[in-house]
Amino acid sequence: MKFGGTSVADPEKILRAAERAVRARKEGSDVVVVVSAPGEMTDELIALAQRVSQEPDAREMDVLLATGEQMSIALFAMACRSLGCPAVSLTGPQAGIHADDRHTRSRILEIRPQKIFSELRAGRICVVAGFQAVNPNSDVTTLGRGGSDLSAVALAAVLRASGCEIFTDVKGVYTADPRIVPDARKIASLSYEEMLELAGAGAQVMQARSIDLAHRYGVRIHVRSAFHPVAGTWIEKAEEKRMEDATVSSLALDKGEVRLTLVEVPDKPGIAARVLTELAKKEIAVDMIVQSAPTQAGVNDISLMTPRATSEAARATLEALARRIGAKRVDITEQVAKVTVVGTGFRRHAGIAAKMFGTLADAGINIHMITTSDLKLCCIVDARHAESALRALHKAFKLGRR
Amino acid sequence: MKFGGTSVADPEKILRAAERAVRARKEGSDVVVVVSAPGEMTDELIALAQRVSQEPDAREMDVLLATGEQMSIALFAMACRSLGCPAVSLTGPQAGIHADDRHTRSRILEIRPQKIFSELRAGRICVVAGFQAVNPNSDVTTLGRGGSDLSAVALAAVLRASGCEIFTDVKGVYTADPRIVPDARKIASLSYEEMLELAGAGAQVMQARSIDLAHRYGVRIHVRSAFHPVAGTWIEKAEEKRMEDATVSSLALDKGEVRLTLVEVPDKPGIAARVLTELAKKEIAVDMIVQSAPTQAGVNDISLMTPRATSEAARATLEALARRIGAKRVDITEQVAKVTVVGTGFRRHAGIAAKMFGTLADAGINIHMITTSDLKLCCIVDARHAESALRALHKAFKLGRR
Repeated sequence: MKFGGTSVADPEKILRAAERAVRARKEGSDVVVVVSAPGEMTDELIALAQRVSQEPDAREMDVLLATGEQMSIALFAMACRSLGCPAVSLTGPQAGIHADDRHTRSRILEIRPQKIFSELRAGRICVVAGFQAVNPNSDVTTLGRGGSDLSAVALAAVLRASGCEIFTDVKGVYTADPRIVPDARKIASLSYEEMLELAGAGAQVMQARSIDLAHRYGVRIHVRSAFHPVAGTWIEKAEEKRMEDATVSSLALDKGEVRLTLVEVPDKPGIAARVLTELAKKEIAVDMIVQSAPTQAGVNDISLMTPRATSEAARATLEALARRIGAKRVDITEQVAKVTVVGTGFRRHAGIAAKMFGTLADAGINIHMITTSDLKLCCIVDARHAESALRALHKAFKLGRR
Repeated sequence: MKFGGTSVADPEKILRAAERAVRARKEGSDVVVVVSAPGEMTDELIALAQRVSQEPDAREMDVLLATGEQMSIALFAMACRSLGCPAVSLTGPQAGIHADDRHTRSRILEIRPQKIFSELRAGRICVVAGFQAVNPNSDVTTLGRGGSDLSAVALAAVLRASGCEIFTDVKGVYTADPRIVPDARKIASLSYEEMLELAGAGAQVMQARSIDLAHRYGVRIHVRSAFHPVAGTWIEKAEEKRMEDATVSSLALDKGEVRLTLVEVPDKPGIAARVLTELAKKEIAVDMIVQSAPTQAGVNDISLMTPRATSEAARATLEALARRIGAKRVDITEQVAKVTVVGTGFRRHAGIAAKMFGTLADAGINIHMITTSDLKLCCIVDARHAESALRALHKAFKLGRR
């Protein structure tokens, strides 16, 4: 059972979350809880660090950040005990989570679960600090963004848990963002592949890294509300019967990226690869890359999407490249949005893509870029059209409440 | 170098404290810093715990409390680095401080300083979390009140440091509290014995526990200001030449205790011992105990001083005892103060005691109880006379600025 920062933001919320864990224990399950730092604490600690140092040392940053989850585990274990159930807190190192020495963005190498097993055998709930681990130097290290989910999935894998419950402030995964599409429906079950595509398409529920790990180890994930005792969304292996169908599961919207275009690039083989290589060197993520057909003058345009946070670095890189390869200029378009349809069987059923493009055309929405795969269809549209595009597609694919 | 909570209360103060450590390092010393939790954090964490549990589990309380010092060490090490000096943070367990398993009030068993020595050899300042240690179960534990001073003194002993600097919000130890006695003077040097008596007499500077440890291991302590770069007070072995004199070093005032009197106790041998035994069973501290001479009716009064925090428990214990031994009643006097003269050679020089009692009599101040030893003279007076008693004695013993 993993509880995020909003679920452990104050003592009252911790007690409510602990009730869930205690109930599961009393119903007969062995329970391992993974908790994040309370509320906004991680951000506050980073702000403190920046007041003592312009470039805080990464090892010390991890020592600092690890205090957040350590507070949560202590309070959570106390709460379980005050509800009448034995419980013990374990830091990441105590829980046997070993990771590499890349401070602030370590990768899990191994989990040695002996301590957890012995505590479970003694009838205790184990309350484990997410996001943290011990590195080969015996120092505490952290796992980077989404690290608590990762801790939970990795523990579920090693402990062969029957499921990994991710408690969050939404009730599950929806067919579209309910704040934009009022009749969006909670999805009962999604395949790992679909959830991965949704994460890549901007859904905030879980990061691709944790879903990928769950997929590889076959961990069943249950994304559900920390505040309402209703079933959420299961993320699990796709069932066979669905594999032959073409189904649309969900829509996603992402306004966190910008479009960069290299204009009038001389049409030579290998240019797109060179663009990607230059950006990769700077650790700039590229989400979509589209090359137009060459004009009669022998030039074409190359457009790509990149996260807003790295857009300036990406522009500088592309401008330097443009001078070297003789491209005319680099354009940047900030006001764009990515609308994604996620499902399965799209390659075999061209009708899904046709319906997507037709629906947007009928709504008078211009499409700037398209990418397709068997599991998703992405369109880049003007940001001002994003919400209406989402609503039109949700209706066209009949995703609403039935 | 030990910095208390007020010296690391915010990033700016941490930077100022780090400057002191970096300067000492650059002047050629190997430096080990011990820090407390920032400001009021320990109290805030205890309040949080009490919101999730009426009786927070002691092991989990220690996991929670240890986060305070862990924050301080990370920020302090970052600050040293940002000032251009390599530094590394070490939790109590990482620093090799081993203690027993009495959670929230552990005693240090052993320090294994290998890690600290290797970091010092590498030229780094070691920033160690005070107040915390690892217990035989590999869990973090805390050392109780004054624990950070204790960590500092214990490390200084094991590392054979040339001194243990206790940085605090006062400039040193004074001949009396300067808020009450304006011409009080900072004392350059005090013996361990005198400092122990002062601590017992209510001086807030350091707890008896740490001074006692420093005494046993011959650790020279320098109590000094975290904010002003002036010399403070050294606490060290008494010099021979002073041992033969009778000197008054300092005065202390304590309003934190109350007086309890068992009235009209039948005069039998062993009653005072029985009083002390009953209170000790309940872990109630007794500071002074005075038995009056028996009256003609064969009864006498037994008075004792006990900390205000335990006065109700002490009263209940004494009332139960009064019924069993046939004492008339138990009186409690809240509005009392303990005035103590600390120095050396008092037994050999009765004039000191005579001057104390005479000075108070001249000032019209009634003395309720007296205890004497070679190192201190204590009088209990009405609380309303406390400050004037202190000023009169400070003048009589010529302790002011010369």
